[in-house]
Order: sequence, then structure tokens, then C-alpha cells
Amino acid sequence: MAEAVAGCVRHGLPAIGLWRQNVAEQGLDETVRLVKDAGLRVSSLCRGGFLTAPDFEADNRRAIDEAAALEAACLVMVVGGLPGVVPGEPLGEISRDLPAARERVAEALALLAPYAAERGVRLALEPLHPVYCADRAVLSTLGQALDLAAPYAPETVGVVIDTFHVWWDPQVFEQIGRAGREGRIASYQVCDFLSPLPDVLLGRGMMGDGVIDFGPLTGAVAAAGYAGDVEVEIFNADVWAADPDEVVATMKNRFERLVVTRV
Amino acid sequence: MAEAVAGCVRHGLPAIGLWRQNVAEQGLDETVRLVKDAGLRVSSLCRGGFLTAPDFEADNRRAIDEAAALEAACLVMVVGGLPGVVPGEPLGEISRDLPAARERVAEALALLAPYAAERGVRLALEPLHPVYCADRAVLSTLGQALDLAAPYAPETVGVVIDTFHVWWDPQVFEQIGRAGREGRIASYQVCDFLSPLPDVLLGRGMMGDGVIDFGPLTGAVAAAGYAGDVEVEIFNADVWAADPDEVVATMKNRFERLVVTRV
Repeated sequence: MAEAVAGCVRHGLPAIGLWRQNVAEQGLDETVRLVKDAGLRVSSLCRGGFLTAPDFEADNRRAIDEAAALEAACLVMVVGGLPGVVPGEPLGEISRDLPAARERVAEALALLAPYAAERGVRLALEPLHPVYCADRAVLSTLGQALDLAAPYAPETVGVVIDTFHVWWDPQVFEQIGRAGREGRIASYQVCDFLSPLPDVLLGRGMMGDGVIDFGPLTGAVAAAGYAGDVEVEIFNADVWAADPDEVVATMKNRFERLVVTRV
Repeated sequence: MAEAVAGCVRHGLPAIGLWRQNVAEQGLDETVRLVKDAGLRVSSLCRGGFLTAPDFEADNRRAIDEAAALEAACLVMVVGGLPGVVPGEPLGEISRDLPAARERVAEALALLAPYAAERGVRLALEPLHPVYCADRAVLSTLGQALDLAAPYAPETVGVVIDTFHVWWDPQVFEQIGRAGREGRIASYQVCDFLSPLPDVLLGRGMMGDGVIDFGPLTGAVAAAGYAGDVEVEIFNADVWAADPDEVVATMKNRFERLVVTRV
């Protein structure tokens, strides 16, 4: 955590997206102090969710508390897959009833949203690429995320637009426009989709190394009124193993060249 | 080919889906004779498509001719990915313009549909799971396939509903209903989606080994009026390596137990 925060400062990055396990390792209070002293915004806390598991509630309330303490712009919600499916594990007793799992997510959200509102935390529903439907998120499209968010105030429940997850969607531009009109864009995240996909979880790449055309997506998000931080989130073992200063330098270069749109 | 045809006869399967490379290996005339003598229907010929490649036309006309000779119920169209992306190969010069690639597919279809109509062949547009959007099919949802088919007579352009590709889609039941109303269901294919996905291309499984709930999907396809053959298509190295008689026995058992719905 200290290294990541110092890296942001050294490279002039104004905001950082945090993951809960790193916050826990550093300690919540110490993390709050670190990011405050560094003058960084917390663009998001990742992640709440896994709402299809029986014991979702206590942990999600803790995640909301942490997001409040960190003054995170939102708490990213990865809603969970089919009940009983554990990511990376062989299938045991599972439910294959996908519509019911989606209903469970809606019910769990109804339990958590009032608490998030009370704590001033914005829950950001993240549709994940359909390849994760079974094990990580039964929420598969931006349209579906917006339908799920509809009953709540936009400042309490928003959506994440992550290029890796939504780039393929024939309705993506229409739904980004809708997300803007409904005031729901809580986060815009970028990374590339590698091809061939070397790994289902870690097959994400630095912008420019894959197949995504970032300009039109960034343009649509900007035209939809989103003016918050853009997060670069890359699940990739090579990126993680590389020298952090080189990774940030490459990231800034690619970001300027491929992601930013000027209107 | 001879082994597959004999296996269908031995196990009382009334129809077979053929792949073009196997037809080519056996010879088209000899394949026609084999399936006719065996009394088998050809439920589909797989595949035409890759319409985003510059040289798509001649090969697709040949595929249409072959489907006509085989009296196949349809020619499955895997429409192709982003121009320049070759499945399994590192990225070279590619186009990242996904909307343009989709437009190219529509234009190619406009060139091929009249020829298919003339030869009495039904083109069956297959939406592929979004994980294949870059390298195999920019056609990612059933709704999108139906939009693409809309300008043509249903007997000339239909759609394939493959459980592996569509099970995750929040709109799948609505779009199956629409496909029925529009008379477009050309093929219903089943196989399971394994979790964790062991391989992006070959991670398909025998029904019951993965996460798909077949009953509601089969029920929706039947309620939509589809009364054609149901194809079991499993891309899986273990299945391919196993004893064919055991595979067919397992397939029949799983099919009866998990796929068939009785109304």
C-alpha cells in the first residue's frame, strides 16, 4: 500500500483505486492516513458483492464502512455467480437457476442500499464479461446493471463501465448514453482484452496490447457526462511482476495515446 | 465420416451435423451417399462465415453448394471476428473498429443470401459467446442475430441457438420467443459450459458437467415452435479422445435426463 501510494505521488497520479485485502493488510486507519497525507483521491474501493452467497451481509456492511472511512468515490460491487460456485474450484453442490440467482442479487441489494445511503457510500454495480457469469457475476451487461440500479437514488447505486467487460456488447453505446441520462456512471475503468486470451482471469492487458478501441468508448462515457477519475485496472501476471515505475510510465503513455479523447 | 455415420446408425440417432473439413476429407459425393444410405438427416453443415475476411465470398458459395448437395437443414454461419484477427495467432495488423466489422458482416450477408435462396439453403447465423468476439464472431447475442436476419425471408436466413453461447444472456428467453415468432430458429445446439473454464475454445462439456440449466432453455425453444433436430456439439479434447460408443451412451443418457422437456 505504501509503495502504491508513493508511486502515485511520484508519477503525478491524483487518485488510486484500492482493494480491500490490501487495505486490510495495511490497516484501515493507516490506509486512510496514507492516502490523505499523499493528497490522493480514492477513486474506488474494490470490492463488495458476492451477494449470491449465504453470508453476504456482514461482510458487505464492513465493506461499506471501509468505503466510508476512505471517502471512496464508490464501492465496486462484483455481485457473485451461481450459488455454490467458487471461483477456481471444481463444481460441488451448486444452483443452476440463473434467473433465481439474479433475483437474489436484487434482493441483497435492497438490503444493503439503505445502509450505503446512510453511510454516504455509492454502490457501483459492475457488469462482468459473460465469461464470468457462472463464477463471479451473474450481472453480465450494462443494461442489466442499470435495470438493477433503477429503484435506487443514483447517488446510492451507480454502475461501473469497464472496457474489458463491456466492449463486445452490441448495446454498449446505447447503454452508456442511458447510464449518463440516468446519472449512474460511478466509475470508468480501462484495460485491454488480449487475443488470443491467455487466461480467463488474468488475460487482461495494457491498453494497446489487445483488441479494444478505447476512443469511442471514452468518448461515449465523456459525452454521457462522466467527469470522474478513469481507473486503469489490469489483471495480468506479467504486469504485476514488472517494475512498477516502468508499468506506470507505459500506462501513462498508452493512456494519453489511446484512451483520452479530446472534444 | 464413415465411423461417425455408422455410430449414429448403431445408436439409433436419426440425424448428424457435419463439419466441412470432414466432408472434404471423405469427398462430398461419397458423404452424400453415406448419409443417404444410412437414412440420416443432415441437421446442419458447419460452417460458412468468417465474413470479415477479404476472401470470404468464394468459400462461402462453395459451402452453400455443399449444404445444398447434402440437403442440410442449414449452413451454420460463424461470422468472423475483427478483421485481421486470426484465431489462436498473435495479433498482427488488425482493425479494432467493432461496429464497422459488424457492418461488414451485414454487407457480406446481403451478397450471400440471394445465392443461398437460389440453392434452397438456409443460412443459420450463430451468435457466439462474447469471449469469441475478437477472433471468431462479432455476432454476440441472439437479439443481434435476429436483427441481422430481419431483412431476409426466414427460410433463407435463420439463427442457431447454442446453449453454450447464449445461456448467460439476460435477454435469452425474450429473444428465443422472438426468434420463434419471427420463424427464425434454424438449429438448437446443446453442450455445457464448464466452470472453471479449462480452455477458452475447448472448455465445453457434456451436459450435466457444467453450469447450464438446460430444461428452461429447451422448454423455451420448444414453446417457440422449434420441432427440428437438437444437435449435441461438444468441443472438448477428453470427449474427442474417449471411446465413441461410451460418449454416445453418456450423451443419450444426459440428453434424456437433462435436455429433453416434456410438456
